[in-house]
Amino acid sequence: MKAAIPVEPPMAPCLSIFFLFIVTFCVTLTAAAAAGHYSLQTFFPRPAYQSLIKHAKTPKPKLPFKTRYFPQTLDHFSFHPKSSKIFYQKYLINTQYWHKGAPIFVYTGNEGDIEWFAANTGFMLDIAPKFRALLLFIEHRFYGESMPFGKDSYQSAKTLGYLNSQQALADFAVLIRSLKQNLSSEASPVVVFGGSYGGMLAAWFRLKYPHIAIGALASSAPILQFDKIIPWSSFYDAVSLDFKDVSQNCYEVIKGSWAELVAISNQKQALAELSKAFRTCKSLHSTASVLEWLWTAFVYTAMLNYPTEANFLKPLPAYPVQQMCKIIDKSPSGATKLTRAFAAASLYYNYSQTENCFEVEHEVDPHGLHGWHWQTCTEMVMPMTCSNESMFPPSGFDYKKFAEQCRMKYGVLPRPHWITTEFGGERIEKVLKRFGSNIIFSNGMQDPWSRGGVLRNISATIIALVTEKGAHHIDFRAATKDDPDWLIQQRRQEVENIQRWLDEYYVDLRHA
Amino acid sequence: MKAAIPVEPPMAPCLSIFFLFIVTFCVTLTAAAAAGHYSLQTFFPRPAYQSLIKHAKTPKPKLPFKTRYFPQTLDHFSFHPKSSKIFYQKYLINTQYWHKGAPIFVYTGNEGDIEWFAANTGFMLDIAPKFRALLLFIEHRFYGESMPFGKDSYQSAKTLGYLNSQQALADFAVLIRSLKQNLSSEASPVVVFGGSYGGMLAAWFRLKYPHIAIGALASSAPILQFDKIIPWSSFYDAVSLDFKDVSQNCYEVIKGSWAELVAISNQKQALAELSKAFRTCKSLHSTASVLEWLWTAFVYTAMLNYPTEANFLKPLPAYPVQQMCKIIDKSPSGATKLTRAFAAASLYYNYSQTENCFEVEHEVDPHGLHGWHWQTCTEMVMPMTCSNESMFPPSGFDYKKFAEQCRMKYGVLPRPHWITTEFGGERIEKVLKRFGSNIIFSNGMQDPWSRGGVLRNISATIIALVTEKGAHHIDFRAATKDDPDWLIQQRRQEVENIQRWLDEYYVDLRHA
Repeated sequence: MKAAIPVEPPMAPCLSIFFLFIVTFCVTLTAAAAAGHYSLQTFFPRPAYQSLIKHAKTPKPKLPFKTRYFPQTLDHFSFHPKSSKIFYQKYLINTQYWHKGAPIFVYTGNEGDIEWFAANTGFMLDIAPKFRALLLFIEHRFYGESMPFGKDSYQSAKTLGYLNSQQALADFAVLIRSLKQNLSSEASPVVVFGGSYGGMLAAWFRLKYPHIAIGALASSAPILQFDKIIPWSSFYDAVSLDFKDVSQNCYEVIKGSWAELVAISNQKQALAELSKAFRTCKSLHSTASVLEWLWTAFVYTAMLNYPTEANFLKPLPAYPVQQMCKIIDKSPSGATKLTRAFAAASLYYNYSQTENCFEVEHEVDPHGLHGWHWQTCTEMVMPMTCSNESMFPPSGFDYKKFAEQCRMKYGVLPRPHWITTEFGGERIEKVLKRFGSNIIFSNGMQDPWSRGGVLRNISATIIALVTEKGAHHIDFRAATKDDPDWLIQQRRQEVENIQRWLDEYYVDLRHA
Repeated sequence: MKAAIPVEPPMAPCLSIFFLFIVTFCVTLTAAAAAGHYSLQTFFPRPAYQSLIKHAKTPKPKLPFKTRYFPQTLDHFSFHPKSSKIFYQKYLINTQYWHKGAPIFVYTGNEGDIEWFAANTGFMLDIAPKFRALLLFIEHRFYGESMPFGKDSYQSAKTLGYLNSQQALADFAVLIRSLKQNLSSEASPVVVFGGSYGGMLAAWFRLKYPHIAIGALASSAPILQFDKIIPWSSFYDAVSLDFKDVSQNCYEVIKGSWAELVAISNQKQALAELSKAFRTCKSLHSTASVLEWLWTAFVYTAMLNYPTEANFLKPLPAYPVQQMCKIIDKSPSGATKLTRAFAAASLYYNYSQTENCFEVEHEVDPHGLHGWHWQTCTEMVMPMTCSNESMFPPSGFDYKKFAEQCRMKYGVLPRPHWITTEFGGERIEKVLKRFGSNIIFSNGMQDPWSRGGVLRNISATIIALVTEKGAHHIDFRAATKDDPDWLIQQRRQEVENIQRWLDEYYVDLRHA
């Protein structure tokens, strides 16, 4: 019996590994020839890293940094003759406010060029003079220029094997210790800062290396996005809520647009029609790219729903979700849901009004082997689903299929429980209530990653700073004259806490 | 010009890696033919593990254990296709007092057969009924039966590369988590116990995996025996003090015996004369073995200076240092220092009066590749020297020579600062004053390893239990009717602390 064309997209496995500026999709439209219709099927997560970076205009950091390269041990946790190989790890350093014994503020680099993080973490630059702090931005191994095997670093599991968070944390430890020794300033207190995956690293660094960092500010760090700690639908529910909170109609239009996309995709002239409707620069090869293109726009706009105009990944107006919904709500009454969704997404891709057409189909890296993708296929398994409440097509998470894809691609199987074994997360409020200190988890509830973050104070010194209107590590951006009070207040609290950690440290130091 | 024969042995590099039942020596007597005299020179540390174990009579543990084998990941910190190899890790389990939700007491195995530790950690067995605790003794990878590459495990750095403390800690984490899941008892609190290197692992486990263990009892754990945290001469000064405190004459006789040994070694019939004097079963091949034989006796007797008769490595009387000194002090007035030293050492080797002659020359393992030896050549670099105050020949520590020997032997270089980078230790009282909780560091000052231990309370919950008369993890031995009050009291304090951790845990658990 021939299956009927579904009005709503059918359930499909949905694993999405979004990160800071790495977006991947859980579903895509593929021809299901046998059934005679298009359906939403598993799409292997693919980071759009390169293309996103390419489009983002990196502002120059306000302070001049010196670029240095540290001879780093490739494998900290084994002692094979080969593992004593070193590679050159890039870091940026500014000492202009610093004197011997004064604090060292370290950004624990995440999945990208360290220049990019230095340019977008103005908060550390803003507060450096007050603390007379040395600033240190350390690049994460296998990203930017810190490639252990040069151009071959992403070649296979043989080289990529050394790319993981534990090795990265050990890199930070070794580099910081060596730097302090070279500066003859071993007593300088170190505070680590990180956003997103970098925030996870900062928090974990304080937990695993308390003898090296006296405290950590972890912004938008979804350390609970693993295993079954939070509901798997949290992320997309949160994206959806951002839109729903602005306008019920906006949410419903986007939610309804996928079925229209499926309907068009089933038509004979689908590609031509969609190319025209989406003003693509080149004719589309796949209807799936349209879904991906829309999806990216909605998710990143939610993450970057900042209260001021900003240019992080792309130039966006203040509160861009509100602006998107305004476009949807004010569209001509005859417009289809898909047309409205397209108009809204255009805000994300063309707020600067510089694009005459859209590069809807991302340039695919010929090797398809980006660092974060590898990490998701090994340790960073963050299961995600789309619930019926979300504005995305409902979908589940098929671990077996996911694991098989990883095996096919890299010859390795993910270790889905490893992160919670190595770093914990389950019942974190009980574990850390009586263990550890000096960690700030900052989150903005507009950011869908907040749902995987620590949102409540755990102890007197492991605290959560949560803002209703904040988005993805907004607190880490440089202060602007338009910053709202809640953001000024949040940063003030962060500074006060760091000040207290340092005061305590220096008091302890004097009582030798 | 021909050098004169020194009366006192000349300064020589001295690195000694003693452990629990692994003894090595910093100096040995070798022919310095060119100079025409014998001198004390560097001797590559060699564990006497096999021979010591062989001689020790392992008492049966009081409780029956089931032996199990866990499929363990070979390499937790990389994701190469090969690293997903598994090996079978041995563990012993007893559930007779336990019920679901009750505590799990884990012994974090160190450098030897896990049966051996189970048999010599009667304390855990003694307290299990009171806590209704499950008992779990986990064998350390590359020891006992837990050989990742079977008979080839010690073959080269290629296989031994996976033998280190971080991998061992991760093994414990993975195994404990899996076991709790299999028991459907995820809420069971875990307390880790360990003595000596196992105590270091227990303390580090609580620090690195607080989400898995709620507390640690680390007995005789020299976590500060690294880098320059404590004076390098501490260990041998402590051994010497044990003897000096009993009798100044005893100390001086031993201190003077080495010069006599050097003098005899320079004689023509040295080997024959020493073979006779030391009642060796077979003729000696090297005068160095005599030094090693005496050295072993004095160091282990200090470590095992228990208040009751015991049979840990060998049968020994109560307070054996006192007994040794009695032998020295009461020797006939005409006896040489070396003869007296021999008579004293005979107590260690023949307290049971069963030996008619002595196997002074240890059987050397043909590969010379024991696990602990590898660990000292990679991460466990514990520099030791013999000061002028010690009763051993004065000696320094030549790191370069040591490193070169490791390179020659294994093709790898030690990482002498790695342990303090990974686990800390420097200014530990300041670091842990505001971080972590629930660790007991127990030490007995008779034990020379105590000098590398934590001897003062760090915080309300990271405490030191120190006894003046205690020796190497005496608290972990089964209670006997002859135990002195201070030992009964120490164990009572340990039980009280563990009880408090558990009480707090269960209160926290109920307030979900």
